[in-house]
Parts: sequence; structure tokens; C-alpha cells
Amino acid sequence: MHPIEKIIEDCDRAIVAEDFDTLMENYTENAILVVQPGINATGKSEIREAFERIAVYFKHGLSVEQAGMQIIESADTALVLAKTIVSAPNQPKEERKATYVFNKIGGRWLCSIDNSYGHQVLEQNA
Amino acid sequence: MHPIEKIIEDCDRAIVAEDFDTLMENYTENAILVVQPGINATGKSEIREAFERIAVYFKHGLSVEQAGMQIIESADTALVLAKTIVSAPNQPKEERKATYVFNKIGGRWLCSIDNSYGHQVLEQNA
Repeated sequence: MHPIEKIIEDCDRAIVAEDFDTLMENYTENAILVVQPGINATGKSEIREAFERIAVYFKHGLSVEQAGMQIIESADTALVLAKTIVSAPNQPKEERKATYVFNKIGGRWLCSIDNSYGHQVLEQNA
Repeated sequence: MHPIEKIIEDCDRAIVAEDFDTLMENYTENAILVVQPGINATGKSEIREAFERIAVYFKHGLSVEQAGMQIIESADTALVLAKTIVSAPNQPKEERKATYVFNKIGGRWLCSIDNSYGHQVLEQNA
């Protein structure tokens, strides 16, 4: 298993458990999270707040898992292409074609760009 | 226009003109090109050879252009999500949901991961 795959598994578990301290250890300082197409959270404190709001939005029942993944690695940068399954009691199950970027900093892979919406971000301008 | 958008425009023009010297100036030393899902070229010399073979494959009539693009930038890393149109006299026009990663090195954006196939790379294992 690629170390990034393990990190994403840990993050998915942390999101479900609403363990945002553990979750935030896996982001770079200047990371960007696409909260929804057209709305980004920038930096650790905004991302943490966004995850707190997302947990409330999904009535503390959010589940995230990966149904397939490819990692393309070049030096200290890696692109993750994943099928991400998002579900919650109050929502239909949704499959996203997610794109994540990781940077290796001080020997550790950290997420710098977290875009679970993939190419859906292009549709905001459609 | 984001500087990366301009670089991609220059690269598309260089691919069409088969000007591989100009093209290769825009890749990192350890860049990865997805030649097709499951087959990667790694490093500048492999990537250049791959583009030379691609030009022959498309009978020197390859055309590449972008029909839409979003750039998500975090510090010295950027993720590009693009609608890439690939066409050639001997092929039907193809629209790909491309994913490119750029790194800013010495103040210049260079492509480190060139995956015009986007999530199609997941299908190689299907």
C-alpha cells in the first residue's frame, strides 16, 4: 500500500469520527480544500472550520470512503485520482471523481490540494 | 490569464508544431507523462521520446487545445483541471478530462505530472 493511500484511509476515518486534530495533521499550512465548486477554504484554520460546518450539515452522519485509487508520483509531488464515495443519513450516496495533490515535506506526505469534486469545479462557470 | 494557462497554451502550440525543445522547457526533470492509462514516461528524455512517437502515431497531424480550465493553487503547487480536446486527421475528435500538476521552481511554473486522461487511469485495473 502506498503511504498516501494509508494517509487517506486515516483521514476518512478521522472525518467520520470528527477527529479534526488528527485530520488537520495531514494538511500543509497553505492547503486548499474545495468545499464546493467555486468555494474554497484556504489554510489549516479555514479548512478545519469548513470540516466542522460540513459535519453539522450532514447531521454528524457523514461517511467517506474510497472505491478505487491511482497515485501518480513525481519527486516530492503526487497526484491522487480516486473514486470517493460520500454518504450520510440525510443524503443519497454520491460518487465523486476526486483529485488530491500531496507534497512530501520533511519526509512526510501532506495534502496541499483537496478537491473531491474533480472536474465538477469547471461547471461553476458553465 | 494565470501564468500556467499561458504555459499550457505555449505547450499545445509546441506539440502541434513538433517543437519538442520548447515543449520540454516546461517540464520538471522528474516529470511524469501518462502516455496512455497504465503506461507512463518518466523524466525529460522519456517524455520527449514519447512525444516523438505520439507525433508519428498521429501522422504529424495532432492538434491539442483546451476548452475550459480551472487552476487550484497552493503555495508552489498547482492542480489544473482541464477539458482537453485532442484531434488528428486519422482519429475522431476526443475530449479528455485532464489533470495536470505544476510546481513553481526558481520562480517558474513547470509541469511535474501530465495526465491528460484524468480518471481514465483508474480503468486500467477495471
